[in-house]
Amino acid sequence: MPDYLSQHDVQSLLDESPFLSFMGILVDTIDTGNDTLILRVKMRPEFERRPDSGQYHGGVIASLIDVAGDYALAMRVGSVVPTVNFRTDFLRPAINTDLTATARVRRTGRSIAVVDIDVHDDDKRLIAIGRGTYMSQTG
Amino acid sequence: MPDYLSQHDVQSLLDESPFLSFMGILVDTIDTGNDTLILRVKMRPEFERRPDSGQYHGGVIASLIDVAGDYALAMRVGSVVPTVNFRTDFLRPAINTDLTATARVRRTGRSIAVVDIDVHDDDKRLIAIGRGTYMSQTG
Amino acid sequence: MPDYLSQHDVQSLLDESPFLSFMGILVDTIDTGNDTLILRVKMRPEFERRPDSGQYHGGVIASLIDVAGDYALAMRVGSVVPTVNFRTDFLRPAINTDLTATARVRRTGRSIAVVDIDVHDDDKRLIAIGRGTYMSQTG
Amino acid sequence: MPDYLSQHDVQSLLDESPFLSFMGILVDTIDTGNDTLILRVKMRPEFERRPDSGQYHGGVIASLIDVAGDYALAMRVGSVVPTVNFRTDFLRPAINTDLTATARVRRTGRSIAVVDIDVHDDDKRLIAIGRGTYMSQTG
Repeated sequence: MPDYLSQHDVQSLLDESPFLSFMGILVDTIDTGNDTLILRVKMRPEFERRPDSGQYHGGVIASLIDVAGDYALAMRVGSVVPTVNFRTDFLRPAINTDLTATARVRRTGRSIAVVDIDVHDDDKRLIAIGRGTYMSQTG
Repeated sequence: MPDYLSQHDVQSLLDESPFLSFMGILVDTIDTGNDTLILRVKMRPEFERRPDSGQYHGGVIASLIDVAGDYALAMRVGSVVPTVNFRTDFLRPAINTDLTATARVRRTGRSIAVVDIDVHDDDKRLIAIGRGTYMSQTG
Repeated sequence: MPDYLSQHDVQSLLDESPFLSFMGILVDTIDTGNDTLILRVKMRPEFERRPDSGQYHGGVIASLIDVAGDYALAMRVGSVVPTVNFRTDFLRPAINTDLTATARVRRTGRSIAVVDIDVHDDDKRLIAIGRGTYMSQTG
Repeated sequence: MPDYLSQHDVQSLLDESPFLSFMGILVDTIDTGNDTLILRVKMRPEFERRPDSGQYHGGVIASLIDVAGDYALAMRVGSVVPTVNFRTDFLRPAINTDLTATARVRRTGRSIAVVDIDVHDDDKRLIAIGRGTYMSQTG
């Protein structure tokens, strides 16, 4: 088992990516004992579904889910891994709030890994849930 | 059966959304006879997975899929509808290319609709496929 | 909020269905406080993937997932509800074992509900996971 | 590229499996030029959702989808491959009818393949759709 990346290293990986840097994704918590990673994102004007609504577009939430699943594996593997597929279920609108994405690895096999991701708002309400399949080795 | 929105009206709906306006999503083709909508997106620096890679981040592709499915229904219903859930499968990397998303409505029920979305690059290669469930009426 | 069905009532609903009666699905545990239902199934010869393998075919596991999600809602709603869609991820083979499916309701909205289902073998190993969207009212 | 299996060979593989033999799954059509396989299933009493309803339980339909996707690959690979995950969307009830499942391979990569499956009834109505990810090599 390799060493896990540190919070600083995961943040550096995120910041290197133009898309994730634009999204402003922050590492909130790393819990290697539970194979869990929590990312955080803050509202910015380009994220709005409708003007002056303060509501996140679903695409932003889906992107956050994909990234959280990916980096929950990256903190073990040492670098980002390709997403095979993922599912996003929208449960409630997210309005005028930060979002956290809690990614928990459910299974890591020889070639494939599965991660569950829960997205919450500032009031701890469940906004969306994701489930992703990733390659468990770097490409 | 209500009248379908025109290409101009669908483009206006897209442009009103801060997120979709930022993404620069364009209506490429409307084919009401086949309940099919084709959207197009062009690379911009914020979309890159890694710096100077020219490769789209998966979150951009997932967002395009969600929007194409939504607007394939919007052009019938007259306004955007809530996404219930959607699945994204990544088949090939998309590098230095426009992307088109071809959304085809598979079924519209009383309360739920299902749409398939194929994403192609400039060389007509299949980049990703999506399948989404949406509310078939406006919220 | 209506009263929840009793374990006896849920078992009766299961037994009424020719398919679920054939599968021999048993109610293992009802935990209304956590909106959680656990179903159990035992191997029978028709379930085998290959002859004399003792391994469940994936279709049996997917069926168990769909049913567990459905009945986690049925115990609240009072009768079975239509499945909109569901995803099944296979994590390990299931060989010479009972299976339990633990279904937990993640969200019940006005028209749609989402349920997560974990399938374990006798050694508490995670065999498969499911996620389903259901109509939250009876048809 | 290996030779494709013949219709007789695919049927033999199906018949060897206790579960698929119980389901009575028949090869309807093999179209190797389009990487498409059509399977057929007939109603039997154990498949009913409710007694004397003539309606297929969703688990039977999900099983048919999983198998059709798997065997669309098996006819190329030469033997069945493990399912990674699959999604089933139910579009209409299936009552007093045979079902066909048309499986079309969308992409075969080095380690992963993706297949779409459409399920129709005798009146050519679309009953359900599936999308599955499989290992593209035998385990």
